[in-house]
Amino acid sequence: MQKYAVIVAGGSGIRMGGEVPKQFQLLKDKPVLWHTLHAFIDAYDDVQIILVLPENHVERGREIASQFPTHRIRITTGGETRFQSVKNGLRLVDSHSLVFVHDGVRCLVTPQLIRRCGEAALEKDNAIPAVAAIETVRIQTNDGNMPIDRNKVRVIQTPQTFFSNVIKQAFEQPYEESFTDEASVVEKMGVKINLIEGERINIKITTPIDLVVAAKILEQKK
Amino acid sequence: MQKYAVIVAGGSGIRMGGEVPKQFQLLKDKPVLWHTLHAFIDAYDDVQIILVLPENHVERGREIASQFPTHRIRITTGGETRFQSVKNGLRLVDSHSLVFVHDGVRCLVTPQLIRRCGEAALEKDNAIPAVAAIETVRIQTNDGNMPIDRNKVRVIQTPQTFFSNVIKQAFEQPYEESFTDEASVVEKMGVKINLIEGERINIKITTPIDLVVAAKILEQKK
Repeated sequence: MQKYAVIVAGGSGIRMGGEVPKQFQLLKDKPVLWHTLHAFIDAYDDVQIILVLPENHVERGREIASQFPTHRIRITTGGETRFQSVKNGLRLVDSHSLVFVHDGVRCLVTPQLIRRCGEAALEKDNAIPAVAAIETVRIQTNDGNMPIDRNKVRVIQTPQTFFSNVIKQAFEQPYEESFTDEASVVEKMGVKINLIEGERINIKITTPIDLVVAAKILEQKK
Repeated sequence: MQKYAVIVAGGSGIRMGGEVPKQFQLLKDKPVLWHTLHAFIDAYDDVQIILVLPENHVERGREIASQFPTHRIRITTGGETRFQSVKNGLRLVDSHSLVFVHDGVRCLVTPQLIRRCGEAALEKDNAIPAVAAIETVRIQTNDGNMPIDRNKVRVIQTPQTFFSNVIKQAFEQPYEESFTDEASVVEKMGVKINLIEGERINIKITTPIDLVVAAKILEQKK
């Protein structure tokens, strides 16, 4: 089955405080986004990458993409919201294929996790990687709060993986505030969400400290 | 009202991989535990610190404590579990006082947070600092999983602050597996738990990467 990876690198990077959005900042001499693309290229010989970039950063993205075989990566521009960016990316996805939607700034994703998502989605219609909370957690209720088993709290990651027909249809729905990730959009159609075990190191680079953490993780991998 | 801080530094540090437990590892030339003690000494002129240490590391702890006025810190030894360690520490706490129970490895706690916990506990009987989850979260249910507003997921921190009579009585209960923090022990007696806003930087040092993060946070503070 044809595979697509819609990699959303549309963030403006406001939280990083720098002028360069986080997906373009350097991590071990390569842009964050390079690491992300590399993991997907590595995961499958035949995955077609659709890179969704902010309009004013297309050139920068093209430069990074040019370090990989050109036929493997197509570039499109994002919208104002993540929902719109993913929707734009999905326009380039064929029917009857498998789609991985991934945060461009989750640059430590491994080919192993990507392939596990692919296999699980083929078997159970979709696959959303998630990890347990590390710390003690409580849930706020209407009149206070209550304890909850931290293993029941699943912290959601990407790549979120679906059959293209399902996710393309889901993104035809009007936008809602509860759409914080692709799973929430697909779930809105009544589809059951299938969580699989993610990877602790599959972090999202959103602050300068995250970049330091990522560098340290890469060092330890060696 | 007399104030006590029971600082639990009883971990064996197995997760760090090193021989030195994490509370004794260096962060900006000072042991992690030094930073923790410093924050409490700084928070109040009159807080009595009760430092709970693993038996085989009492000497190391004493050395760190000796860098502060001696009358401010008393040392006792921990038990096999955190529950037992806190219980040991509480033996040195007078009735009718305010008690802060704190993880020794949460070394970035600020005097401001400590004082906010104190004030909130005086007003509402107890105060447990907590922060919202940063990422999308789902809750595992018996037959699948469901989305939950990430702001309703409260990630629990310390210092957990109580009146001494209440927490001392709570720790007379037989140990249960659900006792993952002091709030869970006190709640078991039917006491309502009062969450207050914690601090994002108030992290727990449990892995070598956490030490790198903590160093970076300290640098940014300057």
